[in-house]
Amino acid sequence: MIHLTDIAEAHQRIGKYIHCTPVLTSRSINAMAGADLFFKCENFQKAGAFKFRGACNAVFSLSGDEMSKGVCTHSSGNFAQALALAASMRNIPAYIVMPRNASPVKVAAVEGYGGIIYFCEPTLAAREETAAAVIAKTGARFVHPYDDYKIIAGQGTAAFEAIRQTEKPDIVIAPVGGGGLLSGTAIAAKESLPGVQVIAAEPLGANDAFRSFYSRTWTPSIKPDTIADGLLTSLGERNFPIILQYVDQILTCTEPGITHAMKLMWERMKIVVEPSSAVPLACMLEHPSVFAGKKVLVIVSGGNVDLSRHWFE
Amino acid sequence: MIHLTDIAEAHQRIGKYIHCTPVLTSRSINAMAGADLFFKCENFQKAGAFKFRGACNAVFSLSGDEMSKGVCTHSSGNFAQALALAASMRNIPAYIVMPRNASPVKVAAVEGYGGIIYFCEPTLAAREETAAAVIAKTGARFVHPYDDYKIIAGQGTAAFEAIRQTEKPDIVIAPVGGGGLLSGTAIAAKESLPGVQVIAAEPLGANDAFRSFYSRTWTPSIKPDTIADGLLTSLGERNFPIILQYVDQILTCTEPGITHAMKLMWERMKIVVEPSSAVPLACMLEHPSVFAGKKVLVIVSGGNVDLSRHWFE
Repeated sequence: MIHLTDIAEAHQRIGKYIHCTPVLTSRSINAMAGADLFFKCENFQKAGAFKFRGACNAVFSLSGDEMSKGVCTHSSGNFAQALALAASMRNIPAYIVMPRNASPVKVAAVEGYGGIIYFCEPTLAAREETAAAVIAKTGARFVHPYDDYKIIAGQGTAAFEAIRQTEKPDIVIAPVGGGGLLSGTAIAAKESLPGVQVIAAEPLGANDAFRSFYSRTWTPSIKPDTIADGLLTSLGERNFPIILQYVDQILTCTEPGITHAMKLMWERMKIVVEPSSAVPLACMLEHPSVFAGKKVLVIVSGGNVDLSRHWFE
Repeated sequence: MIHLTDIAEAHQRIGKYIHCTPVLTSRSINAMAGADLFFKCENFQKAGAFKFRGACNAVFSLSGDEMSKGVCTHSSGNFAQALALAASMRNIPAYIVMPRNASPVKVAAVEGYGGIIYFCEPTLAAREETAAAVIAKTGARFVHPYDDYKIIAGQGTAAFEAIRQTEKPDIVIAPVGGGGLLSGTAIAAKESLPGVQVIAAEPLGANDAFRSFYSRTWTPSIKPDTIADGLLTSLGERNFPIILQYVDQILTCTEPGITHAMKLMWERMKIVVEPSSAVPLACMLEHPSVFAGKKVLVIVSGGNVDLSRHWFE
């Protein structure tokens, strides 16, 4: 288990490599939500998502000896880009195992950051096997995208920073996939803001965290079906206990709700966010009584979308 | 003619009503442009565009007597929304003449700000006749979208502000349509930064300013054809002499260049900008030698786009 001090240390460590992203507000969205929302915009983070914070903390925590053979991960999405960029900043190789069907935009981004890509079949087993083979061959150090305390501490720096940028929130809300962002956010919020509520936001079509949380039993994500492609994975082993301890409730939202919220953020806030980033707003608009009249800090996870896709009708 | 003092006064007058918008940078776009670009993001301005600055200055410059019957303009685009919002802040009616074929998104936005809409045929003659009839009936005061010194001074506050937010630029670049933004920007830049170059950016398919500037003879915009729908109009009578005096050069860009630049801004900067806002970047990418190694302040005009349109392949 880690604590606020680990997040503060992480922030100290990565401060000069990351962007201190802005906190934006929108009067029209506040009016719709019936609450005062403060959006911490990690879509403006380097590599386009909060994932760079954790990747940076993991990479810059390694000793010279530990990092000498490079780092390796498996990811189809934002963590792949984030680790490739963080590794390039320490001049070490990043071996990225990606499923053969990963989006060409994300593959190009990983290559752009100098990542060395190994493709595999699009199953968790194939990813893990391929990563093991790459590590055996290269001696690289494995970095898990979320089930890792250095990663959790790094992701927690987004909320840590935001708390210092805005008025004290009544509620902090973040999306939940593997739980890296949520667990880091929850520690940062609960250990520094007495009385704050921490709420997780999850698509109904990928509600394994919701089921795990309310049954207090880890439950895998089986055939998740949601547009929020950053939130498909099951909770990590290190993330789940933190979430049980520090999260007050998990809310879910519908698919049309996610698209609607995403469109609102593009249209009213003029920011490009990915579907996963819109899940908190979708939950707020579908459960307004929970948020009525409150100050809410919203962690906006990222902005990596394929713009050739026709997102809105 | 107006001067820097008028822009400073305008900034004083409207300061508490407008957003002081951020200046953003992008390492990847800098690398492509071979220059250091500082984007003044008026897409984050109230009503989604720089137009609110001028509208606000015009409306808040009126005496109680002058404003008593409200204000009127004709616009199919951002100025309609801007004037409706500014008028609502002084609790006076805004009569907005819009062409029958105006985008439903823009019509809804004007209505959302409380504007009273009169539809007309989509010709300049019909717009002017309808506005004249509305003014005769209501006694409202006409506010021209760009050919007006209060408007020019208001639009100049974007550059005025940006110059105080960033390092001293070598070049300031803004798009040109009617010339309100360009003439205000040029005064703000030339009268406060010795040695600065002011460059205007225009679509090749609507290059009336280019032709007017280099022939030193006002030339109308006839059948303009460009995706940059904010830049279709001819230069205003008050704007042209300022542009002749203070602008160093006008560059043009192609239609594919505009779409490419717009996509880069959405994809790399994670901001939603309208095509007109991408015209300066398109010109920089198509004329790189002009900007090589320079610090360039780029005025990003607005972010009001119809998201149901499929913008990118």
